[in-house]
Amino acid sequence: MKAAYYSGNGTIEIGTCQPVAPGNDDIQIQVAYGGICGTDLHIFRGAMSHRVTIPQIMGHEISGTVAAVGANVSDFSVGDRVTVMPLEPCNCPEEQQSSEFWYVCEGLKVLGLDTNGGFQSFWTVPARTVHKLPDALSLTHGALMEPLAVACHAVRRAKIMPGESVVVLGGGPIGTLVALVARAAGGDVIVAEINPYRIDRLRTHFGFEVVSPPEADLKSIVLGKTGGKGCDAVFEVTGHPSAAALMTELPRVHGRIMITGIFATPPAVDLFKLFWREITVIPTRLYDHQDFSQGIQLAASGTVQLDSIITNIRPLDELQVSLSELSSGANALKVLMDMQN
Amino acid sequence: MKAAYYSGNGTIEIGTCQPVAPGNDDIQIQVAYGGICGTDLHIFRGAMSHRVTIPQIMGHEISGTVAAVGANVSDFSVGDRVTVMPLEPCNCPEEQQSSEFWYVCEGLKVLGLDTNGGFQSFWTVPARTVHKLPDALSLTHGALMEPLAVACHAVRRAKIMPGESVVVLGGGPIGTLVALVARAAGGDVIVAEINPYRIDRLRTHFGFEVVSPPEADLKSIVLGKTGGKGCDAVFEVTGHPSAAALMTELPRVHGRIMITGIFATPPAVDLFKLFWREITVIPTRLYDHQDFSQGIQLAASGTVQLDSIITNIRPLDELQVSLSELSSGANALKVLMDMQN
Repeated sequence: MKAAYYSGNGTIEIGTCQPVAPGNDDIQIQVAYGGICGTDLHIFRGAMSHRVTIPQIMGHEISGTVAAVGANVSDFSVGDRVTVMPLEPCNCPEEQQSSEFWYVCEGLKVLGLDTNGGFQSFWTVPARTVHKLPDALSLTHGALMEPLAVACHAVRRAKIMPGESVVVLGGGPIGTLVALVARAAGGDVIVAEINPYRIDRLRTHFGFEVVSPPEADLKSIVLGKTGGKGCDAVFEVTGHPSAAALMTELPRVHGRIMITGIFATPPAVDLFKLFWREITVIPTRLYDHQDFSQGIQLAASGTVQLDSIITNIRPLDELQVSLSELSSGANALKVLMDMQN
Repeated sequence: MKAAYYSGNGTIEIGTCQPVAPGNDDIQIQVAYGGICGTDLHIFRGAMSHRVTIPQIMGHEISGTVAAVGANVSDFSVGDRVTVMPLEPCNCPEEQQSSEFWYVCEGLKVLGLDTNGGFQSFWTVPARTVHKLPDALSLTHGALMEPLAVACHAVRRAKIMPGESVVVLGGGPIGTLVALVARAAGGDVIVAEINPYRIDRLRTHFGFEVVSPPEADLKSIVLGKTGGKGCDAVFEVTGHPSAAALMTELPRVHGRIMITGIFATPPAVDLFKLFWREITVIPTRLYDHQDFSQGIQLAASGTVQLDSIITNIRPLDELQVSLSELSSGANALKVLMDMQN
C-alpha cells in the first residue's frame, strides 16, 4: 500500500498509503492506474504552490475498482470497475441556479489538486464523482477518461459538424485527444506540432495530417484545403504565444477559436483579425458529467482508439523520474503510473 | 452643388458635385446630412490609404431625400426621406450559401470608403442599400442610422437580456449608442470613459453611471454591483490596449466580451482569465439589414433618444476643420455635415 507525496522543490517521496474509510456518500477505490497530467507537472515545477498543501498526493486521472462504499451509496458495488470525475462543486447560489455553471464556478475544487489525489493504493472520493467503466474498457484506458472528457468538452463547445475543417494547435495528450474527438464528430482535422516524436506518432499511429510550423506554412496549407476560405474551427492546446499569434490567421469568416491551452502570461492577440471576420473565441475548461459519459462511450465503442496515447506504464516508485523526464520534454504522450504493485 | 474631396495628406478640397444618373437598380439621393465616422478620421490621418482612391469623396452616414430612381426601382419614389446601409456585397459563393456571411465577406465593399461616398449634394447608390425613414424620424437623426446599426448589431450578437449587467468600455459615439441600445434591451449599463466632456454628457444627457479608469477601480465597482460575480457582458469600444487588459477582469463565469473597437496593433489579452471562467469573446463588425431596421424603429419610437449624440452641425465647407478638430480630441460626440447649403 503505497502513496506518492509531493514534498515541494520538485521532490516526490514514496510513503505509505493510509486508506480513508468512506463516509456515508463516499466510495473507496483501489486504484489501478493514474495518468500524469500537465497540471501535475505544473505542481511539480512549483508553479501552482498556492493551490497544494504539502505533503500533497497528486493524481486525478484514475482508474480502479470499488473497495468499499458508504451507507448511502446504492448504485455501486465492491468490485465495480470505475473512474473518477475529480470535481467537487462549491454549492454556491450560482451553481444552484444553473447547471451550466457548476464546473467552472469560482469555488470549485479539483480532487487531487485542491485535495489529496489518486497516486496511492486507495483513494476515497464522493460517490457522485464516480463513473463506471463498461466491460469493453480496460483499466489502462479507464485512466484516460479524465483527459478524454476535456477533449469531449472542447469539441462539444466548438459544435463541430461533419465535414468541418478543424486545426488543432498542439499534439500532446490533450491536443491528440481533441483531434481524435473532433475527427469522431466528423471534422477534417490537421494537427500542428513541432516535436518530431509526437509528429511521427500522430501520423503513423493516428493517421493525422500533421504540420510543423514555422517550417511549414500552416496558414497556406489551411487556405489551400479550404478554397481560400480558412478553417471552421481552431483548437489552441499549446498555451504558447506563437500559437496565440497563429490561431487568428486560420479561421474563416464567422469561424471559431477554442482556447484549451493554459497561458502563463497574456499573449498578444490580433483582436482586429477577430473583429474583421467576426471570429468567436470559445474558451473550454474541464468538463461536465455529459462529457465524461461521452468519452466513456467513445472509448468503449472503439470510436476513439486510445492505445497509442499511452506511451509508458510505470510503477508508482518512478513518479519522480517520470515527472522530471516529462518536464524536460521527454518523447512521450501519456505516462500512466501503475498503483497495483 | 458641392462635394468634399479628400486629396491625401490630411487635406479636403471643396469642389463641385457631379451627380451620377441612377442605373436601372439605383437611387439618386439629394443628401441632407452626413456624419463624420471614426473611419473617415482614419482615412484623413492617412491610416487607410490602401483602401481609398484619391480624390475620394468620403462619408457613409447619410440622410436625404430621393431625387431620382432607376427603371427597375418600384418601392421608392422621388421625395422619400431615406438613409443608406452603405454595404456592397461581393456575391461570392459563401455569400450565396448563407445570409449569415454576406456583411463580413472578404470581398464586401463599404460605400464611401471603397467607393465615393455621401459628402456631396447628390449620391447615387444601389436601391437595395436604401432604407426609408419614418415620419417621426428627422433627417438629422436619420444620419445616425448607420452608427446606430453598428450598436444594434453588437447588442444583438451579445444577446443582452433584461436585467443583465453590462459594461461599455468607451463613451464615444459608438460606445454611447451601444450603451443606449443595451439599456433599451433591458441591460443595467455602466460606461467607462476618460474624457471629461464625454463623461459629463453621458451622465447629464443620458443618465448613465460613468466610471473613469484608472482613477476609479472599475473592477471593484462591477463586483460590488453584482454580488462579487462580475458582469454579464462587456463591450470593448475603445481599441486601446488598456481596455483589452481591463475587459477580461470584468465578466462573470460564462460571461461574454464583445469586440467592437478597432485595434491598430495586437494587444496583450489574458487568455487564462477567459479560460478560467469560460468567457466567450464575440467580435461584432458592421451590421445586417435587420440591425438597420431595428435602429430605425428604436429611434423613431423614441426608445433611443439621439438628440444629445449630435454635438455639432456644420456646413460641408467645414469638413476639413472638423476632421482636424476630431483628430486632436475635440470635445464632441457626433459631428454632422449639412449638405443642404
